[in-house]
Amino acid sequence: MEIKVLKDILSANEQMANRNRELLDSNKVFAVNLMASPGAGKTSLALQTIRGLAGKSRTGVIEGDVSSSLDAELIAKEGVPVVQINTGGECHLDANMTHNALANMSLKDIDLLYIENVGNLICPAEFNLGEHLKVLISSIPEGDDKPFKYPLMFHKVDVVVINKIDLLPYLRFDTGAFSQAVKGINEKVEIFQVSCTTGDGIEKWVSWLLSQIGGK
Amino acid sequence: MEIKVLKDILSANEQMANRNRELLDSNKVFAVNLMASPGAGKTSLALQTIRGLAGKSRTGVIEGDVSSSLDAELIAKEGVPVVQINTGGECHLDANMTHNALANMSLKDIDLLYIENVGNLICPAEFNLGEHLKVLISSIPEGDDKPFKYPLMFHKVDVVVINKIDLLPYLRFDTGAFSQAVKGINEKVEIFQVSCTTGDGIEKWVSWLLSQIGGK
Repeated sequence: MEIKVLKDILSANEQMANRNRELLDSNKVFAVNLMASPGAGKTSLALQTIRGLAGKSRTGVIEGDVSSSLDAELIAKEGVPVVQINTGGECHLDANMTHNALANMSLKDIDLLYIENVGNLICPAEFNLGEHLKVLISSIPEGDDKPFKYPLMFHKVDVVVINKIDLLPYLRFDTGAFSQAVKGINEKVEIFQVSCTTGDGIEKWVSWLLSQIGGK
Repeated sequence: MEIKVLKDILSANEQMANRNRELLDSNKVFAVNLMASPGAGKTSLALQTIRGLAGKSRTGVIEGDVSSSLDAELIAKEGVPVVQINTGGECHLDANMTHNALANMSLKDIDLLYIENVGNLICPAEFNLGEHLKVLISSIPEGDDKPFKYPLMFHKVDVVVINKIDLLPYLRFDTGAFSQAVKGINEKVEIFQVSCTTGDGIEKWVSWLLSQIGGK
């Protein structure tokens, strides 16, 4: 009974996700769903990506948070369009919330839509938003055991961005073992290593993302 | 309609939480519900607390994870009783899962039960387990803006332990502003600063916890 209800919700979500995808495609917008633990660096990577793509691709941002508009304010300072979704208590974005946000964004003026999901390694993995690419940021201080603890998230994403590599000298984190664990769950995943603080690895990530936007 | 279903679930959970509390009290066990983002240091604090309480108080641990038994294995090496709950896909522990775990633990042999919740700053805040104390670990790398983004969690807890203070020299984190934000949401909260890596602040935390166990 409970499983049936969940299936209905997921099925309704899937239908709305398909509508979002059609809307994005008809406006030639490439959408990225960015997921991560709280504080892993979703907004920091958004800022670095917006700056890296300046002059090459026009970015818009949907900010998902349980509460506050702190991140949207940071993004707005970059001069790009941003829509804040406050979920109230919900622990993830869904396709319907995304649909409402899309209605408040001028899609013909952007090429890339960066959707920052709620900070959570569990529930967001279950809800498609209509995006073209699912990206997970996993940060060094969280530890290298996360693929074993949150396998669905690591299984669902197309890309894992390892952030905060500037902290490697101060923490125990085996990037080789981590990458091997990720590949064990998800053979086709792309892995990038970056520091949003120092800028290390950002150029490689931005170039790759640009090739994906072009190849949509 | 959806709200009604949620209310029923929460009410059923509350009834089971009350049963857990009676069971704990009748066995003179003081229970702590430890919540945090993934990788904030729940298991590290458990290990430090077990060692700090050795000879003074007997600890047992319930480990909550979506998947894996990595943390339970670490705890078992300390020679204390541990029960692993794998939630499957669930993003939080509930009173029923806790009840099943309690049935697998010899409560007469412990004084303190340390319940490590699933790594998530959102959903665990909504579910009482029957615990005497709710503790949140908030770690320096997550950033000092978290009280504004996850207000329910900060509102619900009795204690906030700021972990990873050894990383303060390498990160922007204003502990004064953070503490002020926490107190703005939750006036009565106790705040501790620790490093589970260096051991800084652990003695103060353990002494305070011991005073709570005694004062139950």
